[in-house]
Parts: sequence; structure tokens; C-alpha cells
Amino acid sequence: MLNPRFGKQGFMKATSKPIDVEHLAASIKSGNVVALARGITIIESTRNRDRTIKNQLLNAIFSKTGKAYRVGITGVPGVGKSTFIESFGLNAIDNGFKVAVLSIDPSSSRSGGSILGDKTRMNELSKHKNAFVRPTASGTHLGGVAQSTRESMLLCEAAGFDLIIVETVGVGQSEIEAMQLTDFFLLLMLSGAGDELQGIKRGIMEAADAIAITKADGDNITASKNAAQEYRRALHLMPPHEGDWIPKVGITSSIEKRGMQEVLKWLKLYRNNCEKNGYWEIKRKKQADYWFDKHLQKQLLSVLTSNEALENSLSDIKASVHNLNIDPFQAAESLIQSIKIRLD
Amino acid sequence: MLNPRFGKQGFMKATSKPIDVEHLAASIKSGNVVALARGITIIESTRNRDRTIKNQLLNAIFSKTGKAYRVGITGVPGVGKSTFIESFGLNAIDNGFKVAVLSIDPSSSRSGGSILGDKTRMNELSKHKNAFVRPTASGTHLGGVAQSTRESMLLCEAAGFDLIIVETVGVGQSEIEAMQLTDFFLLLMLSGAGDELQGIKRGIMEAADAIAITKADGDNITASKNAAQEYRRALHLMPPHEGDWIPKVGITSSIEKRGMQEVLKWLKLYRNNCEKNGYWEIKRKKQADYWFDKHLQKQLLSVLTSNEALENSLSDIKASVHNLNIDPFQAAESLIQSIKIRLD
Repeated sequence: MLNPRFGKQGFMKATSKPIDVEHLAASIKSGNVVALARGITIIESTRNRDRTIKNQLLNAIFSKTGKAYRVGITGVPGVGKSTFIESFGLNAIDNGFKVAVLSIDPSSSRSGGSILGDKTRMNELSKHKNAFVRPTASGTHLGGVAQSTRESMLLCEAAGFDLIIVETVGVGQSEIEAMQLTDFFLLLMLSGAGDELQGIKRGIMEAADAIAITKADGDNITASKNAAQEYRRALHLMPPHEGDWIPKVGITSSIEKRGMQEVLKWLKLYRNNCEKNGYWEIKRKKQADYWFDKHLQKQLLSVLTSNEALENSLSDIKASVHNLNIDPFQAAESLIQSIKIRLD
Repeated sequence: MLNPRFGKQGFMKATSKPIDVEHLAASIKSGNVVALARGITIIESTRNRDRTIKNQLLNAIFSKTGKAYRVGITGVPGVGKSTFIESFGLNAIDNGFKVAVLSIDPSSSRSGGSILGDKTRMNELSKHKNAFVRPTASGTHLGGVAQSTRESMLLCEAAGFDLIIVETVGVGQSEIEAMQLTDFFLLLMLSGAGDELQGIKRGIMEAADAIAITKADGDNITASKNAAQEYRRALHLMPPHEGDWIPKVGITSSIEKRGMQEVLKWLKLYRNNCEKNGYWEIKRKKQADYWFDKHLQKQLLSVLTSNEALENSLSDIKASVHNLNIDPFQAAESLIQSIKIRLD
């Protein structure tokens, strides 16, 4: 259940009077960030009347999307993610990019998100005219974090942002989702390999397109270089990436602005390489298929369990499956039988 | 569509006269391998009348399942998987185990499987009275390979087999499925790290519970030891496993019977460790949840698209999504609207 107070937050104001969708879409496409923020608020809205508006809005801007670099960035708390993104983002702006930063935070729909935190922690970037830093969504409907992040990304692209950074804030599933939303996945790591690995999900390191060692400044430079070398060796032993890409590893410092240009170079190299061999498009198509299947299945289940009796039997069966009292395949099939009876 | 010839293969004979399920279940539970083979044939059958029998059979044996070690083994072609499994299996039998070998081969429902191949390649093991080597299923209904492997595993457990080896034969998705079916995942690798990585899916190495370097015999021992050391270093840089397990790496030789006792020791150590900290049960519960959700969603989709018009619109929408002409979330929602209309 959603907390009713979410409905009373800022975005209610934005949707309480009739919206001229055509005008809003045109404003977004002209690069107006106030319109962009308002559009994202509609996307994150849980109100039914906003759903139609959202669909119209997405249809109106869709043809202007898909051109940007989409970059996922993750790392454990303490790795210096915000300062990295600020430093990297400002560097990209110096190179002519318009940079948008979005967050995936599965915990935010429960905790209320970190709206103030986000604005504060990327102070310089969020004030820059060629940047758009969106605070973590707090009102996003349950389970729809990836959806609203993806749709927000499309609005940012329509507004002319050509480097979209999707930052993961939560742990666990959020890296997987970020990976399915972006073209290039960057993992931030500290030099003292060991403890900081605790928060990273298994498989993430092997799947990263690049690893940047952070805080490579002052006394820490040598240790960082050694760590980078270790990771390079380790990744060399891992299976190669689709799209013929050898993951890059390098050292960075947000305070000394070290390595930011190199990370940007990796991005360009990756795109160039994958556009040539066709993998850029293949990957985006696979991602579209992934989200369609996933969302369709989720929605199907919610349609069919909107019946109270079915919802109860689903939760009973789920408990039996979880407690290993029944074979999961048999359990699913018996539930399907009840659904079929309802449909007849 | 299934090839009609599958219906004419061996198992048809087994199901063409009425089956006394109680008797069959009792025979399986008494350890009769002819009954076990017949039970698996029913599980793999695509015929509707066998479905009820299958469900009765699984219910009758379910309480006698869940005690075995379930081990997934994978590796690229050429790594020596069959000879490893034969050598490892015989060693486990010497240690008092009863060993069953099953295969996951997503390609088999198309190609007709490798029935003869399987029997031939594990010659000594398949003839042993304490072993049961099941040829790759060829008649398994489309997409149900993991299901029939899991259900076959349960029958083997009921028949008293306490070490179940699930071998992946195909590539790609099959390792992921094997991982979700087993307690312990063993990756076989050759010593000359490089080319042989090509067939391994990204994320598999980081997820493996152990790596065994194969063919560590003759002139190859030093190279194998070095490779093991390299992998040990690399895995040390990867995130730790749930259940507080540090993946093991060692060298093995099937012809010189080297390292087989060590791999068995890892297995026991892993189980001991994870039973103590509770992860053994948590993992099995997670797997049950995984297969229930996955199977329910698959079945739901097939129920709802059994209507021809819906099936057509699904395939049209899928094509639009794949060609990046429509946002996947919006596409899924529009399809759900048509389904809702049908339900009203």
C-alpha cells in the first residue's frame, strides 16, 4: 500500500489543474527544464487521471529519444559516488555534453527518498545550466522505479540531454535494473579491495563495462594504481563481453579531477566500437524486449489477482512454495487451473 | 510446435497402458531404477493424459525429497565435462554416495537430444549399480527443460540418490537455470585461460562456488597450478558469496583421478558451512520462489494468449517493441487494456 502522504507532496500541485499536453511536450522538446521537471512529476504520479496524460506525453516526445549516451553508475556507500558524478558530469559539460542525472532507489518508495540529500550533494552540477539533476523519486508507484526512471530518461533525451547518468542508490536489485536501462555500466571501487566488496552483488563486477578506482589522490595514488592493475588482471580471466569489448580499468579523483576525461573517452570508444559491430542496437533491442516481457507479466498477474479469492489463494500457495511444502511448478499449475475456471 | 515424431519415441510404450501410480511411486521409493526411468519418462511426456499421472506421482514421492546434494556442473565444449563427471561420480560412489546425472540442454527439444552420446560417454558410471545416468531428454515440452530436470531430480532423490549432478549441455541460459536448480555450482576450466572463455556467459565465473581446472595431468600440471593460482587471485577481488563462502579453486585430472576427493570435500564443507549459518535453507526457498514466479508468469501468458486475436496483437506489439518503435512499458500496458476488455 502506498503511504497516503505521498499524494500530498509537491507534484500534486503540478497536476491539479488541466494540463495542455501538446504544449508541455513542445516545451520539453525546446529544452525547458521547468517543463521537463513537471513532465517527470507526471510520470512519477500514482494518480489514475495522470496515466492518460503520461501516455500522451510519452507519445508526443518518443521520436526525439534514443540518441543519448545512457550510463549506469554504481558503487557501495563510501565510494564517493556523488562527488564522482559531480566531477565527471562537469567534465562532460566542458566537453559539450548536456548531462542529466537520475537515480534508481528501490527503497525510496518506502522511505520517502532523499530529495534534499540529492540536491545538496551535487551542488555545483545541479546549478549548472547544462545539467539536470533529478532528486530520487519518492512518490513512484510500488515496483515501478525502473519504469519511471526509463520514462524520465526519455523525457531528458527529448529535452536535449545527451548524456544520461543513471545512478543506483539502493542495493541488490537496483544494479541489475540500471544495467538493463543503460548502454554502459561503470562500477566505482575503492583501492583497498576487501571490505568494500560486501555491498556489491555477485556478477556485477564481471558484467561491468568499466571499473573506476575512486579517491586516487594524495597518499592513495600508488595503492589505487596497484588496485587498478589487480582488477585489470582479474577481468582478463573473465569471459569476454558481447560486442567485443574489453572492460577498462582506471584511477580517478573527484577532488583532483583525475581520470574524468579518460572515463569519457572510454564511453565514446565503447559507442564507436559497438555501433560499428552492431551491438549498440542489439543491446537496446534486448533491453526493450526485457522490459516489455517483465512489465507485461507483472501487469498480467495484477489483473488476475484483482479478484479477492484468487489473491488469497495466491498468497497461501506462495507460502507453501516458500516453505518447501510443495513443488513450485506444480503449485503454479494448480493456481493456473483456478484462474482458467474463473475465465470460463 | 513440437515435432510429432517425439510422441513416437521410447516413452510412448511406457504410457500406453494404464499406470498404477501408487505402485510406481512405491517402486521408485524402494530404489528401483527401472521404475525411476519410467517415472522420468512420464515427467518428460507431452501428452495431456500423462499430466494427471505426473502430478499424482510427484505428490506421492515429494516427502522423500530434498535431502540430496544438488550440484550443477558446467564448462565449455572441450573442457572434458563427461570424463570429469564420470571420474568424480565414481569417486563419490567410493565414498558411499549414490549418484544421479541429469542434463539441462535447451537445444534438445529441437535437435532430438543426444541419447546415444550420453550413454556412451559415461560408460563406466552409467553401468554402476549406485549410479543413474539419464540421457538428455529429447521429448521435453517446449521451454520446460528446467521443469522436467527439477522434477526428475525429485524422483532421483526419492529413489535414494543423494548426490544429484545437473550438467549443462547447451549454452547461454542453461547455466543460469542449473544454478537455480542446485545447491553448489562448479565451473570447469582449462589451464590456458583465454580462448576457452568464449562460450561462458558473463557473470557465471563470479557466481561459481568452485572452479576446477581440468586435464591437469602429464606436461600440463604446472600450467594448471598456475591457472588455479590466477583464478584464486581473481576471485579474491570479486564480491563475497552469500552464505559466507569463499569460492574454491583446484586442479583435477579425470584420467589420473586427481582432485576428485578434494572437490567432494568442498561440497561437504559448503553444505556444513551453509547449514550452520542457515543459508542452505534460504537458498532452497529462494529457488522455490524463483521457479514458482517464473512458471506462473509463463503459464498466465499462455492462458491469456490462447485467444487468436490476442496472440496476433501480442506478436505485433512485440515486433514494435523490438524495433524500438514504442516504449516497452507503454506497449505492455496497452496490451493489458485489451486483455482487461476480454475479461469483462
